[in-house]
Amino acid sequence: MQRIVGIIGAGHVGADTAFSLVTQGLCDQIILIDENEAKAHSQGLELRDMASLVSSSVHIVVNDYAALKRAQVVVMAVGPTSALREDRMEELLETSAAVGQAVPRIMAGGFQGVFINITNPCDVITRLIQHISGLPVSRVFGTGTSLDTARMKRVVGEFFAVDPKSVDGYVMGEHGESQFVAWSTVRIGGVPIGGFDAGKPLDLPSMKDQVRAGGWQILQGKGWTSFGIGTAAARLVDAVLSDGRTVFPVSVWDERQGVYIGRPAVVGAGGIVQSVAVPLTEEEQQAFEASAKVIGRAFGTIAL
Amino acid sequence: MQRIVGIIGAGHVGADTAFSLVTQGLCDQIILIDENEAKAHSQGLELRDMASLVSSSVHIVVNDYAALKRAQVVVMAVGPTSALREDRMEELLETSAAVGQAVPRIMAGGFQGVFINITNPCDVITRLIQHISGLPVSRVFGTGTSLDTARMKRVVGEFFAVDPKSVDGYVMGEHGESQFVAWSTVRIGGVPIGGFDAGKPLDLPSMKDQVRAGGWQILQGKGWTSFGIGTAAARLVDAVLSDGRTVFPVSVWDERQGVYIGRPAVVGAGGIVQSVAVPLTEEEQQAFEASAKVIGRAFGTIAL
Amino acid sequence: MQRIVGIIGAGHVGADTAFSLVTQGLCDQIILIDENEAKAHSQGLELRDMASLVSSSVHIVVNDYAALKRAQVVVMAVGPTSALREDRMEELLETSAAVGQAVPRIMAGGFQGVFINITNPCDVITRLIQHISGLPVSRVFGTGTSLDTARMKRVVGEFFAVDPKSVDGYVMGEHGESQFVAWSTVRIGGVPIGGFDAGKPLDLPSMKDQVRAGGWQILQGKGWTSFGIGTAAARLVDAVLSDGRTVFPVSVWDERQGVYIGRPAVVGAGGIVQSVAVPLTEEEQQAFEASAKVIGRAFGTIAL
Amino acid sequence: MQRIVGIIGAGHVGADTAFSLVTQGLCDQIILIDENEAKAHSQGLELRDMASLVSSSVHIVVNDYAALKRAQVVVMAVGPTSALREDRMEELLETSAAVGQAVPRIMAGGFQGVFINITNPCDVITRLIQHISGLPVSRVFGTGTSLDTARMKRVVGEFFAVDPKSVDGYVMGEHGESQFVAWSTVRIGGVPIGGFDAGKPLDLPSMKDQVRAGGWQILQGKGWTSFGIGTAAARLVDAVLSDGRTVFPVSVWDERQGVYIGRPAVVGAGGIVQSVAVPLTEEEQQAFEASAKVIGRAFGTIAL
Repeated sequence: MQRIVGIIGAGHVGADTAFSLVTQGLCDQIILIDENEAKAHSQGLELRDMASLVSSSVHIVVNDYAALKRAQVVVMAVGPTSALREDRMEELLETSAAVGQAVPRIMAGGFQGVFINITNPCDVITRLIQHISGLPVSRVFGTGTSLDTARMKRVVGEFFAVDPKSVDGYVMGEHGESQFVAWSTVRIGGVPIGGFDAGKPLDLPSMKDQVRAGGWQILQGKGWTSFGIGTAAARLVDAVLSDGRTVFPVSVWDERQGVYIGRPAVVGAGGIVQSVAVPLTEEEQQAFEASAKVIGRAFGTIAL
Repeated sequence: MQRIVGIIGAGHVGADTAFSLVTQGLCDQIILIDENEAKAHSQGLELRDMASLVSSSVHIVVNDYAALKRAQVVVMAVGPTSALREDRMEELLETSAAVGQAVPRIMAGGFQGVFINITNPCDVITRLIQHISGLPVSRVFGTGTSLDTARMKRVVGEFFAVDPKSVDGYVMGEHGESQFVAWSTVRIGGVPIGGFDAGKPLDLPSMKDQVRAGGWQILQGKGWTSFGIGTAAARLVDAVLSDGRTVFPVSVWDERQGVYIGRPAVVGAGGIVQSVAVPLTEEEQQAFEASAKVIGRAFGTIAL
Repeated sequence: MQRIVGIIGAGHVGADTAFSLVTQGLCDQIILIDENEAKAHSQGLELRDMASLVSSSVHIVVNDYAALKRAQVVVMAVGPTSALREDRMEELLETSAAVGQAVPRIMAGGFQGVFINITNPCDVITRLIQHISGLPVSRVFGTGTSLDTARMKRVVGEFFAVDPKSVDGYVMGEHGESQFVAWSTVRIGGVPIGGFDAGKPLDLPSMKDQVRAGGWQILQGKGWTSFGIGTAAARLVDAVLSDGRTVFPVSVWDERQGVYIGRPAVVGAGGIVQSVAVPLTEEEQQAFEASAKVIGRAFGTIAL
Repeated sequence: MQRIVGIIGAGHVGADTAFSLVTQGLCDQIILIDENEAKAHSQGLELRDMASLVSSSVHIVVNDYAALKRAQVVVMAVGPTSALREDRMEELLETSAAVGQAVPRIMAGGFQGVFINITNPCDVITRLIQHISGLPVSRVFGTGTSLDTARMKRVVGEFFAVDPKSVDGYVMGEHGESQFVAWSTVRIGGVPIGGFDAGKPLDLPSMKDQVRAGGWQILQGKGWTSFGIGTAAARLVDAVLSDGRTVFPVSVWDERQGVYIGRPAVVGAGGIVQSVAVPLTEEEQQAFEASAKVIGRAFGTIAL
């Protein structure tokens, strides 16, 4: 049976997610959808031009909503007209309208898979997708703090001159300003960050700033961010398609807080297999709850 | 010893070449150079954010010309301010000036590797790089018709519903308007294209148009092309770094025609190991020579 | 939907096929079957031990015939007790009995996928599997001369100091003594083998001997062959699972000759999409027909 | 510059390490060495037969000691005549003699790279290689408990139905009977093993037995183990070649205990960048020291 992935939105993020999937051969078919017909077909042509240059075979279908019925995963990557905003909540009006149009159309076609949402503000839009689609919460999740966590691993790994892949731990909360690095979860090769010898003083607040400012720095120089998030999304797609049951920090439904919010969860064939109750310090728990409130307020501004 | 690649130009093409290299782990270090400091650092941050999300380890260095001394390959990917031009020769004035500034700086640092040129007009700029650098012609080549050939394989493969990787053959000549599909070299699974049963009539002129229009179609929808060319460049970088001795259609020095021009050649550790004298029909040979003249005239317009 | 592969036989060939699939992440589940319970579980444990060391997630199931119902591909890799025989036909009695037991059991479970046969004598056993299973000929094929062709590419590539991946062409006929290199199909970078400049005299008969003797040489030094055939089988599995429609020289049903025999064919989701009528010289055509007769006679020795 | 790896020993472990490296394209050249000329050449042929079937280009050189001068890594994989022994120390006499012959020959050729030792008893032989070679301790390390740790991740991951890649932690000490699982370091998705909800009682002693018995179970069914250890060795080779600075549990020199012993360390271009002082419980620390004594006694039995 073929591994089929739908991607809604052929802008930088959607296209680079597709580019990453094709380069790595992580699926067998991509259905790329965009309101802008010319752009969708153009990105599709680019991806098809790669066919003889990569070792895998990925079939590209463009703007065929009906084909999404057979998709096991749909990645929501509709973007705002400009990414250069200071606060992700500002995008809400624009992107919630776009999602409000796309999701019913996808569901009407008989989609039975898993939604992975990238569209910002990620936590709010993820909840909106779940609400509109009527799917169980396990089958809708967002990229959440997965990219923020990758950034934290980059910052910490570079500080200690250690492979970021050997850094564990999470950025949690909103994929936005109220997020926080859960430093108590951060380990380098199994050693809590405070105990790893770097031969220089550790400055956690500065590291936290680098993590949170990472996206903004990239936006200013490049106008958008896509390599990191596209690669993170490709990993999540792979985890669903192969039933990886891998733990990622993603935006999942938190019953207690009543919001979708970034926290570690096991991702597999059916979407979210289970949330992971990672122990937090009291301060971190407060930051998590405060972040949940920020997300909740933002969600409240949408008239459903 | 580490595999080190320099990339000059952090626009769409240079950045997507880097994105492809990092995603596939095809080198160990990338030195990314761009006049626009903010853009270079932004792309560098994006690539570093991938570190915990891919299986390989690629170190990213930004805007350090001196570091290029240790590079085995430098990819020239400086672009014009706009890609939306009808004729690639128009870009010549702008890009030749940029290359004229970058190459002496690279050589002054003691670079001893291989240049792979993507900058358009590819054949002319490749010769210019060889001229300015003073390197042997074997150590300077261009992506030439590699992407056009990938496009031909896509068009032919899709027509016959066969994997483009099972289509052999070449687009040759200028990476531009005067290029041609050398149909006599095109085979599907070893069968000359005229002999492969498709159950429908074969229309070579229409196929040729699709190949040549491919880039223009993508430009119009997306504003630039980068996935195909970035992937092709990554393949070529890999062939040099691993001494692959793989045959690719690239822009190489043709002694007889007195120009750099797209034709198959063996690519290995020292750059071009040898050109491949693929047999052509008389008509194809004429098209090749005519294309060489177009390139020669364009090169003549540069005051050296 | 998960990509599920059954492998019948956990000896060197079956296990190394699985090793290659897991290392490359080319499927999501492997069902490994062997009469020797201890061996099957031991190989399964080895493959499961790899789980944290490779980037993909492949689930391993051992000796569960019922699970094969969900497999899209079953690789037949039952082997004889000793691989050190001079003629592959000698193995026939032993392996046909093993296949005669396994296939009905697989079909009884409701298997609806594609058989890829490695078990020798490959062409005869492939036909036997088709006969016993009652599946359409398109859904049963053998590795045939795929490994012999890889050997030819290695011999030719090394002779010309060119990447074997840049060598096209086929070894055809029986996967056994009567096979032949179809030299008229062999090209290096698009150049017929006789026309590629090597700076030294070309000795095709000696090359042919190296191709045919390759397996025997390996057998004598190592006792079995498995890396080449396991890698070839992994490629074929991938082509079926991803509907690659890639051309490979495999053992397919040849209506005219009335045998399964090695020749190029398009391999995709349903197995054999179509045979490829590669043009042969008269001499090659005769060698093909002679080889078909050898296979036919061997098949005739089995009492069905 | 090419990535060159020497492998001493073309038995199951050495050959499967090479198979994994070629399949993944993790190096550019392998120099395979074995006293048994026929076996070495046979394995070399097998690996060369893969050239057209994998996407990378890896050149294979057989039994050329002089070529090792250019290698950045040499993997020591000489094995005993039989792997079916109950205690790894029994192999010592046989393998120490083999290593005692190979290492001086490698050093005499001017080798300047890093030794990665697989040969058992791993911790003792690694120290012996360092002693004979006279290289700094940072440039000699062993696979140590890397495979045991992979087994622990498999056992824990399967118990909790979570990807073994999402399990962190270490098996430490001797790669042998006195090893121990450092349970205090084991986390699933960041949660200490005791706190992760599995919906069933946790039985650590039984898990530990499964980890330690893993190798023996595989040996009994298959006669040797090679997929897991070959894959682990390939990861370590990659970390050295790409200066990954990745944390792995390997056999490194422990100044305090005066032995080479399995514990986490940062692996990069120069071999061991630094040992990682992972916090242990008192009980674990005692087990570590007890294991160190076992290794020390074994080393003492070799007359240097």
